[in-house]
Amino acid sequence: MMLEFEPPRIGCSLGPWNYSFATLRKTKECVIAIPTVDLISKVIDIGNCSGKDVDKFNVFGLTPIAAKKVAAPLVAECFANLECRVVDTRMVSKYNFFILEAVKVWTDPKHKERRTFHANGDGTFVIDGRTINLKKRMVKWQGLL
Amino acid sequence: MMLEFEPPRIGCSLGPWNYSFATLRKTKECVIAIPTVDLISKVIDIGNCSGKDVDKFNVFGLTPIAAKKVAAPLVAECFANLECRVVDTRMVSKYNFFILEAVKVWTDPKHKERRTFHANGDGTFVIDGRTINLKKRMVKWQGLL
Repeated sequence: MMLEFEPPRIGCSLGPWNYSFATLRKTKECVIAIPTVDLISKVIDIGNCSGKDVDKFNVFGLTPIAAKKVAAPLVAECFANLECRVVDTRMVSKYNFFILEAVKVWTDPKHKERRTFHANGDGTFVIDGRTINLKKRMVKWQGLL
Repeated sequence: MMLEFEPPRIGCSLGPWNYSFATLRKTKECVIAIPTVDLISKVIDIGNCSGKDVDKFNVFGLTPIAAKKVAAPLVAECFANLECRVVDTRMVSKYNFFILEAVKVWTDPKHKERRTFHANGDGTFVIDGRTINLKKRMVKWQGLL
C-alpha cells in the first residue's frame, strides 16, 4: 500500500515463508513489478512456485531489464516497475511488514492494457472495471472549504 | 491493507490533518465501514468535509447502528463494517500508520451491490469489474508442491 507520496513510501506485507521475504531482508532492495490483467494466469503460476526452486524469468518467459538504482531487474512485460529500497525494518519481526521507498518509477507508455487485478484470497480475483471521473465533485468541495 | 489474517490485523494510513486521525489516536478504536459503488458520490462528499465541522451521519443521511465491541457506530448503508481496535502505535509519529485488529466483522447479506471502488488520487476512481475464478489453477499448483 502507499503510505506517503513525498517521499513515495510503500508498506509491503510478505509471508516469512516466501523466498522474497529472506531476499528482501538481505538485499534491502527490490523491484515491485505491476502486472495488468493480460498476465493474470502467469501471475497465478508465478505466485504458486518459489524462486528458491525455479528461475522464474526463465520458466515464465519474462524479460529482465536492468534497473537504474537497485540490483533487482525490472520486468519488461509489466505495465509499471517501482525500484524500491527498504527504509524501515522495525515492523518486520512482529508483522512481516517492510517499509519501502520508491527511488525510481517506470511505466511503459506503449503498454495499452492498464487494468490491474486484486486477489480476494479464495482463488478468485477482481479485475479493474471502468473509471469514473469525479474531479468536478472534488473541486466543488475545495471551493467550499 | 490487510497485514495478517489470524489475528485479522489491518494497516491504516491516515493524514494527520484529518479529524479521524486525532480521534483514532485518542479513542484507540474505530469502525471501518466499506461502501459499495452505489454510494460513491456520497463517499466523495464525506471525504471532502470534516467531522470537526459537521455531523456526517446527519448531513449525509446515514444510519448509525451500535457496534458490539467498540463505541463507534456501524454505518447501516455500507456493505461491510469492521469493528477495530488500535494494537500498535509505534509507526504513527513517523508514518501516520496505525496497526488495527478487527475484533468483530459484519457484512449485510441483503446488500446486493458488492462492487467497491478505489481512489486513483487525481479525482478519478476505478470501480471493481468482473471476478475471475482461478481456483482450479491454484489447486493445480498445490498438487505439484
